[in-house]
Amino acid sequence: MAPRVYNPLTNVPSNITETNVPFEFRYSQFAKHMKPSPIRELFKVINQPGMISFAGGLPDPAIFPVDEFAASAGVLQRDGKVALQYGASEGYGPLIDVVQRMMTAKFGRAIDPSELLITTGSQQAADLVARALLDPGDVVVVEAPTYPGTLHSLRNAGARFLCIPCDGDGMRVDLLRDAVAMCERETGRRPKLIYTIPDFSNPTGACLSLERRREMLRLAEELSIPIFEDDPYSQLRYLGEPIPSIKSIAGESPAVLYVSSFSKILAPGVRLAWSMGDPGLIRSMVLLRQGEDLCTPSVTQALVAEYCAQGHLDRHLEKIVGHYRAKRDAMQRAMEAHLPSAKVSWHEPQGGFFVWVELADGGCNELFDRAIAEKVAFLPGDAFYPSADEQIGRAYSGDRAIRLCFTFATEEQMDTGCRRLASVLGG
Amino acid sequence: MAPRVYNPLTNVPSNITETNVPFEFRYSQFAKHMKPSPIRELFKVINQPGMISFAGGLPDPAIFPVDEFAASAGVLQRDGKVALQYGASEGYGPLIDVVQRMMTAKFGRAIDPSELLITTGSQQAADLVARALLDPGDVVVVEAPTYPGTLHSLRNAGARFLCIPCDGDGMRVDLLRDAVAMCERETGRRPKLIYTIPDFSNPTGACLSLERRREMLRLAEELSIPIFEDDPYSQLRYLGEPIPSIKSIAGESPAVLYVSSFSKILAPGVRLAWSMGDPGLIRSMVLLRQGEDLCTPSVTQALVAEYCAQGHLDRHLEKIVGHYRAKRDAMQRAMEAHLPSAKVSWHEPQGGFFVWVELADGGCNELFDRAIAEKVAFLPGDAFYPSADEQIGRAYSGDRAIRLCFTFATEEQMDTGCRRLASVLGG
Repeated sequence: MAPRVYNPLTNVPSNITETNVPFEFRYSQFAKHMKPSPIRELFKVINQPGMISFAGGLPDPAIFPVDEFAASAGVLQRDGKVALQYGASEGYGPLIDVVQRMMTAKFGRAIDPSELLITTGSQQAADLVARALLDPGDVVVVEAPTYPGTLHSLRNAGARFLCIPCDGDGMRVDLLRDAVAMCERETGRRPKLIYTIPDFSNPTGACLSLERRREMLRLAEELSIPIFEDDPYSQLRYLGEPIPSIKSIAGESPAVLYVSSFSKILAPGVRLAWSMGDPGLIRSMVLLRQGEDLCTPSVTQALVAEYCAQGHLDRHLEKIVGHYRAKRDAMQRAMEAHLPSAKVSWHEPQGGFFVWVELADGGCNELFDRAIAEKVAFLPGDAFYPSADEQIGRAYSGDRAIRLCFTFATEEQMDTGCRRLASVLGG
Repeated sequence: MAPRVYNPLTNVPSNITETNVPFEFRYSQFAKHMKPSPIRELFKVINQPGMISFAGGLPDPAIFPVDEFAASAGVLQRDGKVALQYGASEGYGPLIDVVQRMMTAKFGRAIDPSELLITTGSQQAADLVARALLDPGDVVVVEAPTYPGTLHSLRNAGARFLCIPCDGDGMRVDLLRDAVAMCERETGRRPKLIYTIPDFSNPTGACLSLERRREMLRLAEELSIPIFEDDPYSQLRYLGEPIPSIKSIAGESPAVLYVSSFSKILAPGVRLAWSMGDPGLIRSMVLLRQGEDLCTPSVTQALVAEYCAQGHLDRHLEKIVGHYRAKRDAMQRAMEAHLPSAKVSWHEPQGGFFVWVELADGGCNELFDRAIAEKVAFLPGDAFYPSADEQIGRAYSGDRAIRLCFTFATEEQMDTGCRRLASVLGG
């Protein structure tokens, strides 16, 4: 029998042709060097029976508005001939209307549809803005740590990363100007984009302070570096006062692309997000998406537009904020009761999904292995940093931290899980 | 007032920042040279009141299974907690099961889930395979004419095109070997992919003959050039005997990526398609799509899986084949009755959506303008060819043909529309 041919990327055997000529795929340079998402790989380990998971960033399915959402399916009968047809690449009319009203209320000015684009999750918005702006080797400013899903999209467009460290008030914007200057010296390129999650960051849970938002915007406008403001969580605030979004501070300036999503405030299974930004940039993203998926499914857009038109979203938001606030409080109680204060420290999050725990002794990956053996899971800090060879200048790593998600586990699991974590951390 | 800054790509004005510093987006090289889809631009003209349109490739909404599809929404109640959650990048379990059964029946061998990927329309499959295989400047073999949506995806990955002309039996595969040799001489690169729509091609309506399928496969295996077999239409056959798909001729050979879709056999608004191919290639596409949209919406996948589980798809297929056969026949009658045989010729399609009409005098774009004035629309042949500067070797153009879609207009509109077309063509 002829030897099997293995795909070097994936280690999966290719079948042999009938003629026994080995068929060899010639992958793109990019695909050859692509790495699997570290998080998605960890999930295989995490989904073992008996595991208590603080790992995934999943909404609590117990709070999904199953009845109200299913009831919205009447729209598939009423508007079926439109909902089942191809839709506009910009988005389905009734959902654009919903988003336009939400954004007009949020930003206190009339938002034009030419500023809006519906995408298949905010992952697609990240992918489209990356393709619109980046040539291979271009540099993007990111918080360190940051959301790996967006790193994946940016990497797919050939990005390198200029990492700016974070503290309890988000990105250290005071370091930004010097870092950009260093980047220009070292690479000959000015960064093309600043990526930030200013409210309840994934993974740190921190909010960027108002003064830092203003300073980031000033720099962005001065240097013509657009800001990608990723905002899945700002409506999930459990404590404290809201901080204006960077987009709202920017007024009509084109410097900010604001992206938000129905994933956390309604449900991720609808894969619906929206972008709001400069009409020229939005138009580029529309043209790109015509070659990517033509349009987001009209079916899901019709369902969510109907759900919102029935007034369900506002009521649901109140409900989930209360639900997740109780979970946050329970997680804080469990952490304070069990975790050894000499070994770990954290900022209490005021919203969102996550607590970022700093380890006095480092070693997040070894800790992960020991924790899995004790049936408690989290994500190692390393998952939230670009690899060293993708970074410009000093390379940052996440070895000294872990991310805990508090929205998925039950209160009882939180207590047991933190006990297990404490036993792994040592006293 | 400060002058407005225009995006050179889109001619849309950017807003001016509050500080009146013009903010300048630095687009990627690719985005700078991107062109709007010619078809999408034409639709603005085509959607005028009173227009009879043979232009778009839209399914007839009159035949959408609105009641049965809406009735499937019970699954959103029953399986809501799963359908509303994030899903696997490979696809939603119950829909993978449906597709696995369909493909096992079609290909007569046990299909493994590792060979399958659910995408957000087959447009996304084209995008993913392009990103997996193509470096900028790489060459793809395409039929001339071919589907512009796929050209868009391939172009987004930097493709150039090796065009092989078609006749009534599809791609002139007898020209393929010499064309590939010419391409290697001229560019130093062997094509990375062969793209074909072997059944009822968009736009020609032709089927690739069995002998040509075999020859294409032999060449593909010999030269290690994978075939992207795009099959949205093969189940929509109104006359004649089915021809085996290239994938089925290839057996377990990895040389063929087979892509099919629910868009034409159920409804495009669900944006659901599937790819079946070598597990290594499928895995690359999965990793890429994690950075593109993470996963296809579980909501639409659950709805379609339920629709199929209820047995609706098979019944619906019978219904639409009858419906479209009658439309095809009516279109042929109208064309034969009215169109001047000295000016036009065409092959009668045996399935699919389209008739490709060759013009004795050429001039498809001038004809388009005159037809619009007479309130009848079609797509000019040029829309189905890469531009001359994207082609390797001799450049082909579509000036001497037009595409008519027969699935959307009513029988009465077909008669009136062909009368109008005849008056524009002259006697």
